[in-house]
Amino acid sequence: MMETQQEVTTFFESGYREYWPNICVDCAIFGYHEGKLQLLLTKNKILTKWCLPGGYVKKTETLDQASARITIERTGIGNLFLKQFKTFGDPGRNQPYGAFDPEKLYEISGVRIDEKSWLMGSAISVGFYAITDIVKTTPVADFFSSECSWIPINEIPHLGFDHDKMVREAIFTMRMHLYHFPVGKNLLPDKFTLKEIKQFYEEISGRELHATNFPNKLIKLGLIVKLEEKKRIGAHRSPTYYKFNDEVYEKALREGLVLV
Amino acid sequence: MMETQQEVTTFFESGYREYWPNICVDCAIFGYHEGKLQLLLTKNKILTKWCLPGGYVKKTETLDQASARITIERTGIGNLFLKQFKTFGDPGRNQPYGAFDPEKLYEISGVRIDEKSWLMGSAISVGFYAITDIVKTTPVADFFSSECSWIPINEIPHLGFDHDKMVREAIFTMRMHLYHFPVGKNLLPDKFTLKEIKQFYEEISGRELHATNFPNKLIKLGLIVKLEEKKRIGAHRSPTYYKFNDEVYEKALREGLVLV
Repeated sequence: MMETQQEVTTFFESGYREYWPNICVDCAIFGYHEGKLQLLLTKNKILTKWCLPGGYVKKTETLDQASARITIERTGIGNLFLKQFKTFGDPGRNQPYGAFDPEKLYEISGVRIDEKSWLMGSAISVGFYAITDIVKTTPVADFFSSECSWIPINEIPHLGFDHDKMVREAIFTMRMHLYHFPVGKNLLPDKFTLKEIKQFYEEISGRELHATNFPNKLIKLGLIVKLEEKKRIGAHRSPTYYKFNDEVYEKALREGLVLV
Repeated sequence: MMETQQEVTTFFESGYREYWPNICVDCAIFGYHEGKLQLLLTKNKILTKWCLPGGYVKKTETLDQASARITIERTGIGNLFLKQFKTFGDPGRNQPYGAFDPEKLYEISGVRIDEKSWLMGSAISVGFYAITDIVKTTPVADFFSSECSWIPINEIPHLGFDHDKMVREAIFTMRMHLYHFPVGKNLLPDKFTLKEIKQFYEEISGRELHATNFPNKLIKLGLIVKLEEKKRIGAHRSPTYYKFNDEVYEKALREGLVLV
């Protein structure tokens, strides 16, 4: 992570030795808490706009490693299950440093760059997304960000660069993947009722689901199993608790399934 | 397309001016004909292995444009609806020219390259896939290929580079997309029976589908509409013809749907 002035200067002057000058990763981190879906955004100091956290890929790392490293460096959040959603490569789509006011850049970073800088060219960006539990994370703004915050997905402002388009694609793919990869472990409590898991899937997918067909499908696939214990809500209401079947869940994450 | 010796020499010597030296596109083109799914492969003259058609991305083109150009240049097949499936970027995953025997490369191309060539480094590759009608296409081998042929997907040999992994990912994503984007126009006849469209989806998806639930879902979504005309099979068998509703089909291609 760039923290000192020296690290920033080295990155600007000779980062091309360590990083591909034309390959970036951007990460759409969705957070779930108390029934609401949010998106993690960083406010770029130079652009003064909200953006997805992102950065350049090192020549020695895989794209998966790059997305994990960049997320932790830019936001302080680690241990995410990041999945690719799409790669963006229109010429000129993203010339981050070309888009910056050079004076502003100097003010923030203490570095002056010119047309010949390795950072001035166009870059393609591989988009990754993840879903995490907001409570288990503490976002931290990095050197280039004034803020790093969770924003409810229906309140996302106009973003910098082409990140509006990226977020649309990330949401689309995340919701498509919901039908093929299980989600909920580490986001729902260890035991939950059928109503709770249905509400969870409804919030993430943005769709209404069938009250009985949907949970029955989860049971039929073996993804969730019934517990003896019941939830005590009132005298006449005591729905049964369920939990995930870890083995089926992990296998489905690796191989995919059809969940509708 | 590289056809002359001069074009090949120019590409090897100064291609880095026109192309990103570290960004490629590889295309998994699936073909459907008479109930069978096949994959288009090119036999690399230098590697003497079957591979997906692929190539370097120009600095002035989008990734979509690159995938369309490369497919037509390498195989002669144009007008495909290509969709991204995944980007591959493990360090050292694909150093095409590093993997070639230099003498063999010289014999085929008439060019000698050394360690300093722009073609020697590692490259990431953006994977695209498409499904087309085999009858409407005529594959043509390019300068670097000895053959360009359709191979049934259950007979695909061990491929060069990391293309085995790419094909697995392409098939996985293509089959996942089947549940969210319609397919069949230009592959099925203009009018078809419910049994025919079910068999078509079964072959592409590699799964058995429900005899009535599946076609009913297509009808309910408005993707296919009933015609007056019936198919004459025998005295007591005359199933009704259906056709795609173009408007619903195109909208679903743009926006996606849930088809299970």
